Amino acid sequence: MERWETPVGTLAKEAKTAWPLLARTTGAQRDRLLDRMANALIEHADRIQAANAQDLAAGGASGLSEALLDRLALTPARLVEAANGLRQIGELPDPLGEVVGGWKRPNGLDIRKVTVPLGVIGIIYEARPNVTVDAAGLCLKSGNAVVLRGGKEAIWTNRALATILRRALTAEGLPPELLQLVGTPDRSELDLMLRLRGDLDLLIPRGGKGLIDHVVQNSQVPVIETGAGVCHLYVEASIEVSTAIAIALNAKTQRPSVCNAIETLLISRAAVETHLAPLLEALLEAGVALRGCPETVMRFPAAAPAQESDWGTEYMDLILAVKIVEDVDEAIGHIRRYGTRHSESILTHDLRTARRFQQEVDAACVYVNASTRFTDGGQFGFGAEIGISTQKLHARGPMGLKALTSTKYLIDGDGHVRG
Amino acid sequence: MERWETPVGTLAKEAKTAWPLLARTTGAQRDRLLDRMANALIEHADRIQAANAQDLAAGGASGLSEALLDRLALTPARLVEAANGLRQIGELPDPLGEVVGGWKRPNGLDIRKVTVPLGVIGIIYEARPNVTVDAAGLCLKSGNAVVLRGGKEAIWTNRALATILRRALTAEGLPPELLQLVGTPDRSELDLMLRLRGDLDLLIPRGGKGLIDHVVQNSQVPVIETGAGVCHLYVEASIEVSTAIAIALNAKTQRPSVCNAIETLLISRAAVETHLAPLLEALLEAGVALRGCPETVMRFPAAAPAQESDWGTEYMDLILAVKIVEDVDEAIGHIRRYGTRHSESILTHDLRTARRFQQEVDAACVYVNASTRFTDGGQFGFGAEIGISTQKLHARGPMGLKALTSTKYLIDGDGHVRG
Repeated sequence: MERWETPVGTLAKEAKTAWPLLARTTGAQRDRLLDRMANALIEHADRIQAANAQDLAAGGASGLSEALLDRLALTPARLVEAANGLRQIGELPDPLGEVVGGWKRPNGLDIRKVTVPLGVIGIIYEARPNVTVDAAGLCLKSGNAVVLRGGKEAIWTNRALATILRRALTAEGLPPELLQLVGTPDRSELDLMLRLRGDLDLLIPRGGKGLIDHVVQNSQVPVIETGAGVCHLYVEASIEVSTAIAIALNAKTQRPSVCNAIETLLISRAAVETHLAPLLEALLEAGVALRGCPETVMRFPAAAPAQESDWGTEYMDLILAVKIVEDVDEAIGHIRRYGTRHSESILTHDLRTARRFQQEVDAACVYVNASTRFTDGGQFGFGAEIGISTQKLHARGPMGLKALTSTKYLIDGDGHVRG
Repeated sequence: MERWETPVGTLAKEAKTAWPLLARTTGAQRDRLLDRMANALIEHADRIQAANAQDLAAGGASGLSEALLDRLALTPARLVEAANGLRQIGELPDPLGEVVGGWKRPNGLDIRKVTVPLGVIGIIYEARPNVTVDAAGLCLKSGNAVVLRGGKEAIWTNRALATILRRALTAEGLPPELLQLVGTPDRSELDLMLRLRGDLDLLIPRGGKGLIDHVVQNSQVPVIETGAGVCHLYVEASIEVSTAIAIALNAKTQRPSVCNAIETLLISRAAVETHLAPLLEALLEAGVALRGCPETVMRFPAAAPAQESDWGTEYMDLILAVKIVEDVDEAIGHIRRYGTRHSESILTHDLRTARRFQQEVDAACVYVNASTRFTDGGQFGFGAEIGISTQKLHARGPMGLKALTSTKYLIDGDGHVRG
């Protein structure tokens, strides 16, 4: 098993060397590869499950929390889901070779801008071993080699998965180095990985805020930040109370632990008399703990007083901050100050206010009369999602396969020289 | 003049606070601003020239090279050129508000992806003070606030330019903080600037390799790398000798000091008898010093022997490395090993080879039968150029105004909640 001791710098270089063979494949070949990978997972389910049991036993012995053990578990159902996920990725349109622009210059030069793979992508993640399968599928489908660096807790599962997926590459006539696993992940290996500019073309950290911040602050390799979501729902008087309740409940309670759930409800002063109490009652009834601005608490004493820190907190829980604002200007100002540029929504029937909100709120996704929970690759129709970018460079918002591509210009002349 | 002592962190925060007022402007307002900036430069030409004379005198006294003094000089003609440049940028189409994609989901949600400004852009550059004008114009046109950090040598000129351009912002009813100049640039200020993630949305270093490497390796702010060009011209036997000569001369000698000039000529073995001597003779006659592989030197003794280091060197001078390769495979392999993914060209009439070269060479611009010198925003028809990106994230190749934009999703529903 000395393979698993290979330093990450070597893994990345091997991947870079192997990558041109993948870049040269057709979409059909890559789809066949993903199908083969899916089959291999099912075929070797026993081995994977045994490795996962080993991780779970070690995790239990070392006192991992129930929540972490759950994330670590690759149950038979989850393994089937991972295999099906690979097949679904395989069925998506090839993101490569698309001519996204093209024109003829006055001198007759033909210019085409086409999508191409990025090269070698590093994925840094935590306990969940299904990310190993998912990230490998997304990267290989888009013509990229991948260096996977999962959590220590999942090491036996990840080694088993990587071994099986690499065999599928070999069986497809491709070098196994297109899929690399950091076999002994520790902090020093992670920090080495952040310095591999040139060998790695992109790093995507997937996990908690601590991990993402560490990568963003220390990486010399370009990073796509998939950050926190302090999302707001701003309610105006013109929206029906029932609609406001339905959307607030959906945005807060359908799945409170995800980044596109709301953390703060802003209510326009004009809506206070009509909307505040019914909204807060419905939320309370759904089990949401409320933290209000002074006026909210005065009007609705079941809400606890919010601290300044509440406005910038991503609770990821059934907790909601509530604030009464004068108007859309104050709402936009509040979002500018406390939001994380992820997803923001206004509920109104006033066209001018809706337009201003969409134009002036600086966020990846700005909604009118809809729940912020739609910020998701699947909900957007991308078929697969690598994550949700909260940065502005390269990709912003839900990222489909296209986010894993770059472009190059192909220029055709007939002896053209520059005058 | 204590204004010029303001720390860069404060400058960036002020710019970020002022930015929403710019993001809200119409294209017509921004164009009027650029026109006003151009007029102000001409109106205050005397003051600018006096400041520039001060920089030139100080530079002369401190022993700056002639080349550096030339870059520092903002002659009356160059000032007019800078002002005209602003007007030309103003006349380009607004890069903001373009709907670059849009669709309706099965549930009736309407999704639009529109171009928006990035926010605050930091530009780090060296002696040339016209970059101050140019970068300010490009950033403001695209709705971005800008923090300019020019070279110490040009400090009096830059302060004069910034003062005049900021007044144009005020006259247009916009906050002057949209254009910030680091008034006392030193290395510590630069390193502080690289840590302003969150306040700066993007850094673009413009200058020599040392500066760019320093920024890329130390920045926590996303960077667009405008790097070196070790560009190749690969000549096959099927191209006419005269065409090969014309393109080689153009690519090497028209302007050897720029990144899109070639540094290495690769000649297919099949073309050696017919093409090598005429090509090298023409280059020699044009004053190009040749450094050849052993076989080249044997066949053409006027070429000096190339060292291993020659293959990866960006000469930026009338020097050319020459290598005989077996075929397109060896040419592609050589480019993969030594190229900087900037601009590469093949000269051939064979369709299959041309197609393979374009598909397999990993570079921002891959040419068939044309000079690499066309890699340029102006030549591509972008009207203005921020630089040439040699990275794969966000923008690759010549960057027009569009490279200074991000996108956001606008999603319109009618009470939509996620099921």
